[in-house]
Amino acid sequence: MRILLGLALTLPLAATAKPKRKSPPPPTAEVAADLMGRALADDGAYTDLVELCDDIGARLSGSPELDRAIAWSQSKMAAHGLTNVRAEPVMVPKWIRGEERAELLGDSTRDLHILALGGSVSTPEGGIEADVLVVRTFEELQERAAEVKGRIVLFNAPFVGYGQTVGYRTQGPNKAAELGAVAALVRSIGPDSLDTPHTGSTRFAKEVTPIPAAAVSLENAELLQRLQDRGKTPRVRLVLGSKSEGEVASANVIGEIPGRESPEEIVVLACHLDSWDVGQGAQDDGAGCMSALHAAKLIGQSGYQPRRTVRVVFYTNEENGLAGARTYAAEHAEETHVAAIESDSGAGAPAGLRVHTHESDDTAAVIAALKPYSGTLAALNANGLREGYAGADIGPLSAPGVPTFGIDHDTEPYFRIHHTEADTIDKIDPVLLQHNVATMTVWAWTLADVDVQVITSPTLRGNMPE
Amino acid sequence: MRILLGLALTLPLAATAKPKRKSPPPPTAEVAADLMGRALADDGAYTDLVELCDDIGARLSGSPELDRAIAWSQSKMAAHGLTNVRAEPVMVPKWIRGEERAELLGDSTRDLHILALGGSVSTPEGGIEADVLVVRTFEELQERAAEVKGRIVLFNAPFVGYGQTVGYRTQGPNKAAELGAVAALVRSIGPDSLDTPHTGSTRFAKEVTPIPAAAVSLENAELLQRLQDRGKTPRVRLVLGSKSEGEVASANVIGEIPGRESPEEIVVLACHLDSWDVGQGAQDDGAGCMSALHAAKLIGQSGYQPRRTVRVVFYTNEENGLAGARTYAAEHAEETHVAAIESDSGAGAPAGLRVHTHESDDTAAVIAALKPYSGTLAALNANGLREGYAGADIGPLSAPGVPTFGIDHDTEPYFRIHHTEADTIDKIDPVLLQHNVATMTVWAWTLADVDVQVITSPTLRGNMPE
Repeated sequence: MRILLGLALTLPLAATAKPKRKSPPPPTAEVAADLMGRALADDGAYTDLVELCDDIGARLSGSPELDRAIAWSQSKMAAHGLTNVRAEPVMVPKWIRGEERAELLGDSTRDLHILALGGSVSTPEGGIEADVLVVRTFEELQERAAEVKGRIVLFNAPFVGYGQTVGYRTQGPNKAAELGAVAALVRSIGPDSLDTPHTGSTRFAKEVTPIPAAAVSLENAELLQRLQDRGKTPRVRLVLGSKSEGEVASANVIGEIPGRESPEEIVVLACHLDSWDVGQGAQDDGAGCMSALHAAKLIGQSGYQPRRTVRVVFYTNEENGLAGARTYAAEHAEETHVAAIESDSGAGAPAGLRVHTHESDDTAAVIAALKPYSGTLAALNANGLREGYAGADIGPLSAPGVPTFGIDHDTEPYFRIHHTEADTIDKIDPVLLQHNVATMTVWAWTLADVDVQVITSPTLRGNMPE
Repeated sequence: MRILLGLALTLPLAATAKPKRKSPPPPTAEVAADLMGRALADDGAYTDLVELCDDIGARLSGSPELDRAIAWSQSKMAAHGLTNVRAEPVMVPKWIRGEERAELLGDSTRDLHILALGGSVSTPEGGIEADVLVVRTFEELQERAAEVKGRIVLFNAPFVGYGQTVGYRTQGPNKAAELGAVAALVRSIGPDSLDTPHTGSTRFAKEVTPIPAAAVSLENAELLQRLQDRGKTPRVRLVLGSKSEGEVASANVIGEIPGRESPEEIVVLACHLDSWDVGQGAQDDGAGCMSALHAAKLIGQSGYQPRRTVRVVFYTNEENGLAGARTYAAEHAEETHVAAIESDSGAGAPAGLRVHTHESDDTAAVIAALKPYSGTLAALNANGLREGYAGADIGPLSAPGVPTFGIDHDTEPYFRIHHTEADTIDKIDPVLLQHNVATMTVWAWTLADVDVQVITSPTLRGNMPE
């Protein structure tokens, strides 16, 4: 993979002349301002997102719905004027949620509200019936390790932020299995609940035999906690019919706006087309895909052509495998990626960009280099630039050194419905989606058009390709 | 029913002496202040509510859970020092929610998220499959009356307040049936949703053959609306196994703190013990029952004895019939009810009392008479007195003229989870529940202890008993 690391920006920002459509090309920032205006006058992203959500809906890797979404995406890219539109094959895991049921046994049997975690194995025929041990932390699990064998462990960790809490879902079942638990329940990873289970992936170490694992609603987790705190031992019957069916064919969907001067240099606009199998994948990540698609569309329709190629990539299998991201990075390793921008935290108000490189100094240099170009977005309060996580799909591009960027959202509304039946298009504010498209458009254009001449930090300079 | 209508308050409010436990009795307002302090130092209502919610849970009329709750309530009343504790028999309708499922048909079949409305008949064997007609208003239903026959009508009225919107649930299915609909769906009556259906009652006129009726989540209602707005005709398969099983025995649970001077005069503290069959009936209306119970407990334990009798009534069957309220009013018609206070809108921050009589002038007079006694609650911002709805269970007491009072809550958190799986005790703020108990205690004491001498308005005076 050839990489151009860091950006130095030499074009004048102040420009008074009207943009011209012929050479010499107009100043980058001036075009960006024009494009922002176009984005705010266009509601196509929302219209397309309605189709994706309502006509297709949830689209888990390996499902017929994702296959239909892949076909739909190709036709949309073509209709919106992208070129080199194609679906690049990716093998993805196919996991199917079956019947699922959890019951709290007692004087009356009460249903608990669960969603099997992605990848969970099924329970044996007839389900599992066992006493529950509730723990709030991994430390408490260790303290009570002797009590785990033969029980269902419930991790009931209050939400204190996604990054700080999600480990109970990704690692908790594995830790419970290591200690002999027969199944694991995880309090849903979310700040709020109307008896709302949140699914998501969990992982087992190779040497650990996986156990069935499901998310329970906050309400149900607290119920079991209270019963235990009052000296009772809740007993639960768990039935999960979920199963994995090996690997099947899927695809990343790709389309481009070719560069005018250095078409071999690529700026990736990234999102993932797959979703969990609940809700509509509206925030996660339909909105991101529509932002990327319509940013490219707007650039293409504007008559301006960026110096470099803008490449939209709808990745497959972000949710339960990252196969799309890995396959793309491997198969495009010889190409020159200048930058990658991902939108994968909904369509809340964008604050700007989170910037990621492997060194804080480099990140600071990139931020400094881009800051003069952020002004256009000030009117949307979307002109922020800060160090932070960029995105899962572009992680493999980042590994060898490509600067990566994540649209920096207000994520409160995102995590409220993340991986739930409530991730539906009614949660998308059409105006804020336009702000998202505008933000993506401005940065897509800027990163694809600015002059890249000087590597701004010693670290980046040291990694510069020959 | 003998009634003492209106209140005139002649006791001095300012008192500096410590309350004495023997005659002459201390001033009403002074005791109220003492009782408020006791209420704020006592967390028994929350502890009991945990038992009711976690050990019994939802308790629909006619269910084994309600029977257990009735037994539990009697033992709690006795344990807390109430006297004349008894369960007074009431016949209630028994309705059972069976299997229920709704599917949006199409390229992929997608589950809709529903709760059958209370009392709904079942669908025929195999369910109903029909095209859906979505209307936002009754006017739109009339405009499209010719299209209704053979279809499933969805009432998709946005929530603009419970009172203004609930008619679509209570009357919508009847109106659809009159026009030949084969089933009705109603957008859940609530301000917010995480794909959260809200159940509740619906009614059919005697001459109308009932059709199956269910609530759908806001998300699903909007999905069907969008599909229709885009020129499509959504088709739904609906399976409801719900059925009515006639009438069965239930009971109102009653306990008292006897009056010292006029024990035959009664102030009712009201709530309903039954709930819908989802969630835990924590806000609706477990919290109200615990407020009433602990108000009486605190009065009884204080050593003060009110002039009149405080009678706690846990009504049965408020949700789907009001049989408890009607039976109580009929069987106690010969007793002298001075006032009734109900708490049936959750345990949000209490603002004071809503006051109801049949004439605005009388209501104003009652408010004026009580205002001097509200000061104790100012520290909780719970000293408000305003004209308004008092409560469903005490409606039959109000009919012949008893002034009725409703604890005046912030209902935003209430309607968010009303009649849903999310009405669970984790939504109850223990401190605000104490404020509720304090408010109920102060007014229970005040209404049971003030001197009733003068009827304050001509209307009320005209209705005065011989």
